[in-house]
Amino acid sequence: MALSAMTIISDKRTVYSNKWFSIVAKTLDGSADPYYSIEQSDCVSILALTKSQQIILVQQYRPALEQNVLELPSGHIEKNESPLEAAKRELLEETGYQGENLEYLGNLILDTGRLNNKVWCYFVSDVVKLSNNALTDEILSVVACNLKELKTYIIDGIIKQTLDMSIIFLALQKGKLPSNNFNI
Amino acid sequence: MALSAMTIISDKRTVYSNKWFSIVAKTLDGSADPYYSIEQSDCVSILALTKSQQIILVQQYRPALEQNVLELPSGHIEKNESPLEAAKRELLEETGYQGENLEYLGNLILDTGRLNNKVWCYFVSDVVKLSNNALTDEILSVVACNLKELKTYIIDGIIKQTLDMSIIFLALQKGKLPSNNFNI
Repeated sequence: MALSAMTIISDKRTVYSNKWFSIVAKTLDGSADPYYSIEQSDCVSILALTKSQQIILVQQYRPALEQNVLELPSGHIEKNESPLEAAKRELLEETGYQGENLEYLGNLILDTGRLNNKVWCYFVSDVVKLSNNALTDEILSVVACNLKELKTYIIDGIIKQTLDMSIIFLALQKGKLPSNNFNI
Repeated sequence: MALSAMTIISDKRTVYSNKWFSIVAKTLDGSADPYYSIEQSDCVSILALTKSQQIILVQQYRPALEQNVLELPSGHIEKNESPLEAAKRELLEETGYQGENLEYLGNLILDTGRLNNKVWCYFVSDVVKLSNNALTDEILSVVACNLKELKTYIIDGIIKQTLDMSIIFLALQKGKLPSNNFNI
C-alpha cells in the first residue's frame, strides 16, 4: 500500500524517558494530535525443548500485572550483543538450560499501536541443564511441562501472553514441534 | 507459586501521563529501582470470517513502527462499553462488516513486562458487508484473504503482530477455523 502524504511524520519529540524506554510524540503531517510511541530496545524469547520433549517455562512476578505469570524465557538484548547471543544468555540465566543450535523463527511486534521494538524468537531442542537458574533472587522459578500440558495452559489462559502463543504457533507451523498434541 | 515478601508493592507513583496511557513507577518492598508499568485501557480484537471463508484484515500506517502493517481489526474499549460492544463497534467502524454471534476466545496480555492492559479476543463467522469502512481518513484499508493466504502471511512475516497470531492460534485450537491449511 502506498503511503499518503498524511503518513509523513513532520515532528518527533521525546516527552519522557527512563533507563528502560522513552515516550516519543510523533506528529503526522496534516494531523493535530501526536501519536505517542514507546521506544525500547529489542528483546528475545526462546522456546526450549529437552530431549524428553519437555518445554522449559519460567514463572515470575510481573509488577505491570501485579501477579505471577507463566511464560517462555525472554529478555532485552544488551548493547553489543546479537539477538542470538542474547537468546543464549537469557535462556541460561533464566533457566540454567543450554542448547547447541538455536533456530531463528522470526521477529515479532507486541503492540503495533504503541511499541516500536521487535522480539527475536528462537527455537532450540535437546537443551540440557547446566546449572540452577541464576535469577532466583528475582522471583523467577523454572517450570518444565510436556506438550499436552502446554496446550492445556494455552486453552485455560494460564499462558496468556501473546508472544508465547505466537512462538509456539510459529514453531508448530515450521515443523519444530510435533503437532499431534494440538488437535486442530 | 506463593509470592515472597519482595513482591509486595510498597509504592506506586504516576510519573507521566497523556490521554492514552500513564507510566506508573512501582517500587517493590526490598527493591531499590522501581518497575515502570504502562497503564492503558483494555482493547478488543476480532477474527471475522465471511461465508466464503475470507478473513477480514486491515492495513494501516502505524506511527510507532513508521510503516504500514496488516492486522486484524482492533481498538480500545470506550468508557461505559462492554468488551463485546467494543468488538462489534470496532469491526464495523474499521471494516464495514458486521456479524451476529461474536464468540469470546480469551483475554490476552501483549507485554507482561511492561503493559497492564488486556485484549479481549473474539471470533465471528458469516460476517456481511454493511458499508464501507468509516475510517478511510485514518489511512486504513480493508483486505480480505483466504486461509491459505493467511498462513502465508504469518510464515512470511507479513502478519507480524503477536496478538493477531495468537487469536488465529486460539481460533484453530478451539475449532473455529478449519485446520487443514495449517500444519498443526
